[in-house]
Amino acid sequence: MLKITILTICPEMFGDFLASHCIALAEKRQLAKVEIVDIRDYAGGSFRKVDDSPYGGGPGMVLRAEPVYEAIMAHKDAGSRVIFLSPAGQTYHQKKARALARAEHLILLCGHYEGIDARILPFVDEELSVGDYILSGGEIAAMAVTDSVLRLLKGNLKEGSAEEESFEDGLLEYPQYTRPVECLGQKVPEVLLSGNHEAIAEYRKAESLRMTREKRPDLLNKSHFVF
Amino acid sequence: MLKITILTICPEMFGDFLASHCIALAEKRQLAKVEIVDIRDYAGGSFRKVDDSPYGGGPGMVLRAEPVYEAIMAHKDAGSRVIFLSPAGQTYHQKKARALARAEHLILLCGHYEGIDARILPFVDEELSVGDYILSGGEIAAMAVTDSVLRLLKGNLKEGSAEEESFEDGLLEYPQYTRPVECLGQKVPEVLLSGNHEAIAEYRKAESLRMTREKRPDLLNKSHFVF
Repeated sequence: MLKITILTICPEMFGDFLASHCIALAEKRQLAKVEIVDIRDYAGGSFRKVDDSPYGGGPGMVLRAEPVYEAIMAHKDAGSRVIFLSPAGQTYHQKKARALARAEHLILLCGHYEGIDARILPFVDEELSVGDYILSGGEIAAMAVTDSVLRLLKGNLKEGSAEEESFEDGLLEYPQYTRPVECLGQKVPEVLLSGNHEAIAEYRKAESLRMTREKRPDLLNKSHFVF
Repeated sequence: MLKITILTICPEMFGDFLASHCIALAEKRQLAKVEIVDIRDYAGGSFRKVDDSPYGGGPGMVLRAEPVYEAIMAHKDAGSRVIFLSPAGQTYHQKKARALARAEHLILLCGHYEGIDARILPFVDEELSVGDYILSGGEIAAMAVTDSVLRLLKGNLKEGSAEEESFEDGLLEYPQYTRPVECLGQKVPEVLLSGNHEAIAEYRKAESLRMTREKRPDLLNKSHFVF
């Protein structure tokens, strides 16, 4: 069973997320356990102050190293991997999601405010970035990592699903169609109605390749999608 | 004022998100309005069925084109930009966030299940992917786009904040430190305690460059971060 511990100063952002289908299903099937930890619970003093002004000046507040350290240490054991979600991290992608799905315990640390005291970095195993854009905090990034990892757990997916989706074979997914045969002025491609499984498989493979060439030609040369 | 309309079959995932600091602040300051629309409200019949099996077979369910079309049309006007969050989209990044922050109305369409009926694509202005990993649906991606755009709105940030953060000048952010001077066996760099603003600015610029070279050398050659 994979355990994911999310360290955050915004625990209230995760209520709906924990109730979402992917998480609820993984927990019900005892494939995973996701827990949210409030870093404030590890800040001393009655104000539970987790941030302070940056040394050297500048706008905003910096997350203090000590409460974050205490929160990590309170949840870390020999099988834990501490991941700091940060725009300075290595870019997260599907191959990394597969690797994390084989872990025993992930501790996802969400940054916030203008930053985090850099002295926490020696206690982090890995920095990951979910994309080259700036979020208010690491909370949404932690949700993205958790969701993408949990859905890969064996038993949490419908048979065949993961294998047929984007990136798993290095290509984008072929176009999908469902009822009715004609709608919005367009018809379903004939081959999909033919019942000829071989022809359908060929059509889909060709479409995957065509879509990838058209929309994301860079994927054809990237090794991190091929697993 | 920027309006963001999120079309989803999981509206219940957005409660905590709408209450988050970044959104609440933007709405309070009347810089933005975020609304969540349940695609099910646009599915006919008493079962409000939004998905069906794929033509040609395969696992999972496909989101039907018609309710999605009806939901788009019910909210779209001349100033709207319809964005479909999909792993097949162009990669979202900070420069795109800046462009979207200047829009009048964004309609963010969340995909789900195994896919969406491809006949909806002619009614979409742009496909965007928040990263090369597979999520259960577009909901977390829509949150990432919304958060990253709203925090850029003029008046929603502390003075100077945006400019000093990762990616805005094409570099990662310099390391930050806050009280105390010594903790976790490490000291704050002397220069930050010096009060010499020129020396501090020089140190920070050098550190930004050093961190970018070490952790994300690819950023030094990418134009989409330079704004």
